[in-house]
Amino acid sequence: MITVVKIGGNIIDNPDKLNGFLGHFAAIDGHKVLVHGGGKLATQLADKLNIPQRMVQGRRVTDAETLNVITMVCAGLINKKIVAYLYALGCISLGVCGADADLILADKRPVKEVDYGFVGDIKHVNGNVLFGWLSQDISPVISPVSHDGQGQLLNTNADTIASVVAVALSAYDSVSLIYCFEKMGVLLDVHDDTSVIPTLNEESIEKLKEKGLIHSGMLPKLENAIHTVKNGVESVIIGHADALPDIILGKSGTKISQQ
Amino acid sequence: MITVVKIGGNIIDNPDKLNGFLGHFAAIDGHKVLVHGGGKLATQLADKLNIPQRMVQGRRVTDAETLNVITMVCAGLINKKIVAYLYALGCISLGVCGADADLILADKRPVKEVDYGFVGDIKHVNGNVLFGWLSQDISPVISPVSHDGQGQLLNTNADTIASVVAVALSAYDSVSLIYCFEKMGVLLDVHDDTSVIPTLNEESIEKLKEKGLIHSGMLPKLENAIHTVKNGVESVIIGHADALPDIILGKSGTKISQQ
Repeated sequence: MITVVKIGGNIIDNPDKLNGFLGHFAAIDGHKVLVHGGGKLATQLADKLNIPQRMVQGRRVTDAETLNVITMVCAGLINKKIVAYLYALGCISLGVCGADADLILADKRPVKEVDYGFVGDIKHVNGNVLFGWLSQDISPVISPVSHDGQGQLLNTNADTIASVVAVALSAYDSVSLIYCFEKMGVLLDVHDDTSVIPTLNEESIEKLKEKGLIHSGMLPKLENAIHTVKNGVESVIIGHADALPDIILGKSGTKISQQ
Repeated sequence: MITVVKIGGNIIDNPDKLNGFLGHFAAIDGHKVLVHGGGKLATQLADKLNIPQRMVQGRRVTDAETLNVITMVCAGLINKKIVAYLYALGCISLGVCGADADLILADKRPVKEVDYGFVGDIKHVNGNVLFGWLSQDISPVISPVSHDGQGQLLNTNADTIASVVAVALSAYDSVSLIYCFEKMGVLLDVHDDTSVIPTLNEESIEKLKEKGLIHSGMLPKLENAIHTVKNGVESVIIGHADALPDIILGKSGTKISQQ
């Protein structure tokens, strides 16, 4: 069993929360992979350096200077702090970006209505190398930067990386993918934190969509989850970072599976 | 045969020089490791962020903010750019710092006359993990950051890392260590670039020292080289980054060996 966990900016920004979370991650039995973002800290550094940031449809337009900032903050600072802290917790890990060992190969996103700059659309994940590290009890910690194979780094969505990494690893073992965010799961009523839907599949998601019961911010996450379980991953669980131990035990979060 | 190559700031600062150098590195036959610094770019970023930098005896006093800058610039930006570029040159590499896979464990330098802050004195190198990667034809690219095993990253001298990594790998295969810098080798006359001494050993270095013929900046490099060859490394070669192909062929640089 391989557990792939993705954490986002809201945990990473808070050192106490991050360390608490890493304690839970280190305690997961069996093989595990951590995928992290870090957008908020990157935005803060860009502000300090007077590099203007532009978001289009929630995605960062990545010019050359912004790519340097993301590489410094995500592939450098956040990634290495996590790796050092995990070791202190007894979890040996290896911090990588997608260029390392040709782990995640991507194409620079084609310019259509928007030129996103140095943003990558993933075309291949090297599951063999990742599984090799897991077999040596080394947990990969993956930052949201890929490469194009021609020497260019590319800013890449961490949710998507988590999904394609989980799919690639499902060729070697059964995989569970956990998305940690700031809610307890997918909520039936976005204003009621107790209204977590415990399980979903493609059919029930379609029904909720028809009824307009899915919050617009959740829709891409759920579509991505369905895509992931259709491609070999056993389950995708969406839940709160603080609840990781309960999520692992099946007691918290929303579990999306194929059936 | 394993070749460990160390490059410093003067090459890293110049993208054209760096890319040319990486072309030569990628072309080295057999197993190879790259160790890099990056101090000058780190100083530039610290200046932009108004983090005052203090050097004592050529070593950087590393407060918490400076450590973050070094981790961002060296373990992030420089390291990942090198890895992406090497892949484009047909060399699969893995960019790491000393916290990754517990590669380089260090102690925070004790405070004596000077408090260097978060600076590491190396106590152990995980040669087994490094040799494992080399056996898979993956070239480690090592940034000058180690860890203390308690969750703390530490700024660590890249020359020293290159030496201890070379020594650790000498348990597995014969190792040659190459220090690339801005001179053609150890010069008999520091003002005459053609006065390169082709070979040195402990005895000849002692004689030159007695005659006062060794430039003060070169002395620690030579003492380090003697220490390295006494501990199992076949040879240490000091030469110009642009001359790497000739250094590999034994046609350039100063070769320090035990006999």
